[in-house]
Amino acid sequence: MVRAVRWENDELIFLDQTQLPVEVVEEKQESIKQVWQSINTLKVRGAPAIGIAAAYGLLLGVRDKLELPCRDFLAELDRQAEYLGTSRPTAVNLSWALKRMTSVAGGLDTKDTRQIYNCLLEEAVRIHEEDRRLCRSIGEHGAALIRKGTGVLTHCNAGSLATSELGTATAPMYLAHEQGIDFRVYVDETRPLLQGARLTSWELQRAGIDVTLITDNMAAYVMSKGLVDLVLVGADRVAANGDVANKIGTMGVAILAKHFKIPFYVASPSSTVDLATKKGEDIEIEERGDEEVTHFGLRRTGPEGIKVRNPAFDVTPHELVTGILTERGIIYPPYEKSLKAFK
Amino acid sequence: MVRAVRWENDELIFLDQTQLPVEVVEEKQESIKQVWQSINTLKVRGAPAIGIAAAYGLLLGVRDKLELPCRDFLAELDRQAEYLGTSRPTAVNLSWALKRMTSVAGGLDTKDTRQIYNCLLEEAVRIHEEDRRLCRSIGEHGAALIRKGTGVLTHCNAGSLATSELGTATAPMYLAHEQGIDFRVYVDETRPLLQGARLTSWELQRAGIDVTLITDNMAAYVMSKGLVDLVLVGADRVAANGDVANKIGTMGVAILAKHFKIPFYVASPSSTVDLATKKGEDIEIEERGDEEVTHFGLRRTGPEGIKVRNPAFDVTPHELVTGILTERGIIYPPYEKSLKAFK
Repeated sequence: MVRAVRWENDELIFLDQTQLPVEVVEEKQESIKQVWQSINTLKVRGAPAIGIAAAYGLLLGVRDKLELPCRDFLAELDRQAEYLGTSRPTAVNLSWALKRMTSVAGGLDTKDTRQIYNCLLEEAVRIHEEDRRLCRSIGEHGAALIRKGTGVLTHCNAGSLATSELGTATAPMYLAHEQGIDFRVYVDETRPLLQGARLTSWELQRAGIDVTLITDNMAAYVMSKGLVDLVLVGADRVAANGDVANKIGTMGVAILAKHFKIPFYVASPSSTVDLATKKGEDIEIEERGDEEVTHFGLRRTGPEGIKVRNPAFDVTPHELVTGILTERGIIYPPYEKSLKAFK
Repeated sequence: MVRAVRWENDELIFLDQTQLPVEVVEEKQESIKQVWQSINTLKVRGAPAIGIAAAYGLLLGVRDKLELPCRDFLAELDRQAEYLGTSRPTAVNLSWALKRMTSVAGGLDTKDTRQIYNCLLEEAVRIHEEDRRLCRSIGEHGAALIRKGTGVLTHCNAGSLATSELGTATAPMYLAHEQGIDFRVYVDETRPLLQGARLTSWELQRAGIDVTLITDNMAAYVMSKGLVDLVLVGADRVAANGDVANKIGTMGVAILAKHFKIPFYVASPSSTVDLATKKGEDIEIEERGDEEVTHFGLRRTGPEGIKVRNPAFDVTPHELVTGILTERGIIYPPYEKSLKAFK
């Protein structure tokens, strides 16, 4: 199984996802600054993986500060956490994991910075391990959605590469495949950064799943031909009312699914549900650089000086979401009620 | 103004659109075989431009056969027309223009092959000139759709580069701009071949129109933000019931437009309306090579050996089409009736 983030022998290692599917390159992280860069430039990406990466990454930011007095150490920890939190503002798991780390440190009954550090390391490992279990549970609850002959469409990468192991949206696929169920998956390539083409189709193909790559433009076509029975995507944040922020294009897929009467499910661990965000409109949408749209690799595809929009996410209104697949089962509308009860 | 196809001093010259927007390269066509290749590889593309290119291209196929007896010359003309017709099977203008050429030749009251050739040349020039006038008329009938502040979204390239001069979907934009109306255009990049990014945004920008390039994935987003008041696309073929075959992704945009209650217009010269095609399902959809989806230029973006779908077109059901903008006015539903009356 692919691993996006590994902590081994006190070393933090990321699989550089910007080089897939051509090269499989692992990169040791030397500093929290490098971790910030890796998250910001999408070498490591996907909400859960970012959370795990940030928890370990925070350790890199403080492990050479153990000689500081406890109070200064904790202040430094907060400062570094705040810094790392700016690397990807939309991903709620980032701030969630960092807050969990700083809270653990703050709640300890010791002034021994080494002991605090050890507890922080244990907490990071726990965040990682919990995600592994979460993904498996999501897979177990979702596997029933996939039967013999089911056509699944997914967008972006909410897969193994975005998490600890089984992925979120992909977990039901991996488990169904494990169970020998014969189904097929259509993967949107997901412009501008092609996570579907580069990552999802790569990891599903490696696992031996029947996968077909399409451009985002072809989703309506394959749906119209009756090839899709189920849409399954991940989430970067789920608001209290069930609105879902996810990779740009997700809302479009949801609207198409509604048009063709295809169920649209969002896989989301509970940490991605953010009751403090009342509704989708409240979610800040990151706009990324123009060159992601005007270029492809080093090749210019748009004219010199052209204006560009490049929102990294969109918000799928809760009315379009058939169900939210979590580690504790599938949550159905009305979401305001069901999500509150769930959390 | 840009010219996709020129006939000058007995030479046929195409602007090689595969090299835009980086290089502006014109290519002299030496043979009908080269014309076949140019159409097949999309150096010249867009239904009307293909028709014009094919009419002139047919001349290249017979101009060194003028010594043949008349009957053999006409047989050769038919053979070459049939050959050229296989370069892009979905585009109705291709067979339409070729049929028009062979009919003219067949209907002449002479056995002088040189005279027949001259009439063929006149017919090709006439096809070209008619398209110029058609586009302008489409623009005049459609210009009223664009007012101060209107946000227009377009997909693929039904522009100047796809026709003789003003384009079809772009004609109202060019005329509105000529009239000093202040509006803006969003252009889908249109994967896999990026006609929107490479061609439409390039030609609109050259004309000084306020144009913003987005990936196909962002169409729903800009619509949800209230930035789009009108969708205007071209057509490769309009069936008798109003179903519209156009570049892959058009159907998706039409479904989004319906969801957001945005009018969806199709610009189509009458030659693109094909009453012999009863409904969209009857239109053969060309599937193109895998590498357009798995690669970008020379760069691999999908994994080695991945399965791919690559339909070049989709069919937008007539229920999603607000109106069909032609050179003789806008046609409204019920299309079965209105298109029949129109033709």
